[in-house]
Amino acid sequence: MKIASVDLYYLSMPQVTIAADGSQDALVVRVTAGDFVGWGECEASPLVSIAAFVTPMSHGACQPVSESVLGMPLNGPDDIAAMAAAVAYNSMDLLQAAHTWSGIEMALWDLLGKARGEPAWKLLGYDRAYPKTPYASVLFGTTAQETLERALQIRADGFRAAKFGWAPFGASLQGDIDQLDAAREGLGEDGVLLIDAGQIFGEDVDAAAARLEAMERNRVTWYEEPFAGDALAAYAALGQRTKTVGIAGGEAAHNRQMAEHLIDFGGVRYIQIDCGRIGGLGPAKQVADFALSRGVVYVNHTFTSNLALSASLQPFAGHEGHEICEFPTGSQALARELTFNHIQPDAEGLIHLPDAPGLGIEVSEAALKKYRVPVEIRVGDRTIFAA
Amino acid sequence: MKIASVDLYYLSMPQVTIAADGSQDALVVRVTAGDFVGWGECEASPLVSIAAFVTPMSHGACQPVSESVLGMPLNGPDDIAAMAAAVAYNSMDLLQAAHTWSGIEMALWDLLGKARGEPAWKLLGYDRAYPKTPYASVLFGTTAQETLERALQIRADGFRAAKFGWAPFGASLQGDIDQLDAAREGLGEDGVLLIDAGQIFGEDVDAAAARLEAMERNRVTWYEEPFAGDALAAYAALGQRTKTVGIAGGEAAHNRQMAEHLIDFGGVRYIQIDCGRIGGLGPAKQVADFALSRGVVYVNHTFTSNLALSASLQPFAGHEGHEICEFPTGSQALARELTFNHIQPDAEGLIHLPDAPGLGIEVSEAALKKYRVPVEIRVGDRTIFAA
Repeated sequence: MKIASVDLYYLSMPQVTIAADGSQDALVVRVTAGDFVGWGECEASPLVSIAAFVTPMSHGACQPVSESVLGMPLNGPDDIAAMAAAVAYNSMDLLQAAHTWSGIEMALWDLLGKARGEPAWKLLGYDRAYPKTPYASVLFGTTAQETLERALQIRADGFRAAKFGWAPFGASLQGDIDQLDAAREGLGEDGVLLIDAGQIFGEDVDAAAARLEAMERNRVTWYEEPFAGDALAAYAALGQRTKTVGIAGGEAAHNRQMAEHLIDFGGVRYIQIDCGRIGGLGPAKQVADFALSRGVVYVNHTFTSNLALSASLQPFAGHEGHEICEFPTGSQALARELTFNHIQPDAEGLIHLPDAPGLGIEVSEAALKKYRVPVEIRVGDRTIFAA
Repeated sequence: MKIASVDLYYLSMPQVTIAADGSQDALVVRVTAGDFVGWGECEASPLVSIAAFVTPMSHGACQPVSESVLGMPLNGPDDIAAMAAAVAYNSMDLLQAAHTWSGIEMALWDLLGKARGEPAWKLLGYDRAYPKTPYASVLFGTTAQETLERALQIRADGFRAAKFGWAPFGASLQGDIDQLDAAREGLGEDGVLLIDAGQIFGEDVDAAAARLEAMERNRVTWYEEPFAGDALAAYAALGQRTKTVGIAGGEAAHNRQMAEHLIDFGGVRYIQIDCGRIGGLGPAKQVADFALSRGVVYVNHTFTSNLALSASLQPFAGHEGHEICEFPTGSQALARELTFNHIQPDAEGLIHLPDAPGLGIEVSEAALKKYRVPVEIRVGDRTIFAA
């Protein structure tokens, strides 16, 4: 087969707020080759990722992503890896290329899986897919009381694990302590409590460390992204100061090496990979294997649709010991309506990947229409994108 | 003062080829605040960097660059640092933001320098600007004979140092040896020979190391970017296998930390920073200081206009010992005509920064008109960019 087309769909809720809620818009990718169609999703900033696909080239090492994809052969996983290498080389000076390529790469595994009648995790080399324990991923309440109520609701919904994140965390030490106590109270003694600081401390190790006592008292399992994604020295320093809390990070990694460095030089104990940024399933699988070899736990990062969720679970589906997974709850209607089928916890609260070819997620054409944002880009006297 | 406007000019040669020649297009930035105007230049992919400035936000951690810049106070270097931090936080999920911000940041130093009547290097904290020894930066000829002729011409033009880079380097071992011999022959015994592999070896340390013998025999000073920008382990491994050749890299760094990691974990002996990518002069100055503390030599990476060249020389202007600098020759007409004044070697072949406020480079409005590429971006029912 050869890649015949790549269509990019910019979807958005009518109103987008400054909440750290990644389900407010989406860039959905549709790829066709032979008689097959594959679907993927790029994480964040649809317009910029569209531009990276269609832009005129600046020079040989700054070509649009389309140049390394359209018309290329797709007959097996090696062809996906070859395209990944081509994008990395031909678009090395185009920073956004990694995000654009990520959604395309997902769609290629989906398409290839459909062509072969096999789920993506099998194409990635796994013999079976193990169930995962989902944690409900939510934002902190604006008050500790609100966080308490969210935690109680999460338990009532059947989740044992939950992650609370972002503002107002970091605004004041006492406020953070109150939030941590409230989250633990709501989850109960046997709940698994995870905290996402949303990079609020930049590189300030002391500020991040000031929250450790309350975290250890509340038996927080991991402390996610206290720092900017590339602040390896800060991650390593904070890791030296924890007793029971594991430092987590990695969602910003836009290639395999960045994730490996966070493990080897940042000393994280949980590596969190967003398939919509790191270049898709291929490099994510490599990171999952690398993490296993280093005794570090691999976790998906997902805050969007079930299409992205299925994609993000495939790379570590076969690693039985890495059983916790991010499971977005409270997503916007766009993310919920984008797919016909949804991944839901079973009676025991466990998550199973769809037992279906590719990513096993059916995209709703109605949702593509309903939430579509028309985009037109003209450069010189040519319309280079209109959809 | 407050930042009143940011204008983005997409410029291009009529024909753009796949040569690794970064002077074929440009994204020039014009910032106004108070009664002053500042100019900067983003490195590569104008359309994508424009999109990162104007895109609708995806969520609170994925806002357009404009959100952290327009209307902000600009009364001193601290205000530039505050905006840099705001961009890093508010646009953390927008990968291209670093490139867009880089050109704006340059323009802010230019503007601030003009407002205070001081060159940018003084605002950065230096007492004086030392002259630099420029190396002529050119591409390899398609044949060894062509490379020989280029090297002879470079000496005839008065340069003692030259860098040859990119294809066909890496295509075959014997071909590379012939190219290296030709470059040395053309430069003469006392010439300074630098080689840029343009990431051609990916992460293949053995392939890169196979060229070391011919490099050491030809007394190559540095071996630049044998690998992908983030392949720290490969850089470190190759560094262990060299005797006299220093490994160089860093142009892909899009924040300060990435450059520091290449020094600390990649073991490079030359760190090459592109101010049009790393976030401008502020982080570049931090890397220059960090390099000095590590005994590593800082060098600018510049392959575009004299506006970018002046910007890229400011961050290490006050470091006397780091005297070699990249000096693009053979640039396209666009890059030459963009500025009225040009930085030229003096009678002794040394480069001096303009003795003028800000970046000291006067931009030609005529060139902005002549090479302008009209761009229009519509999202939903709004035109969000038209120029």
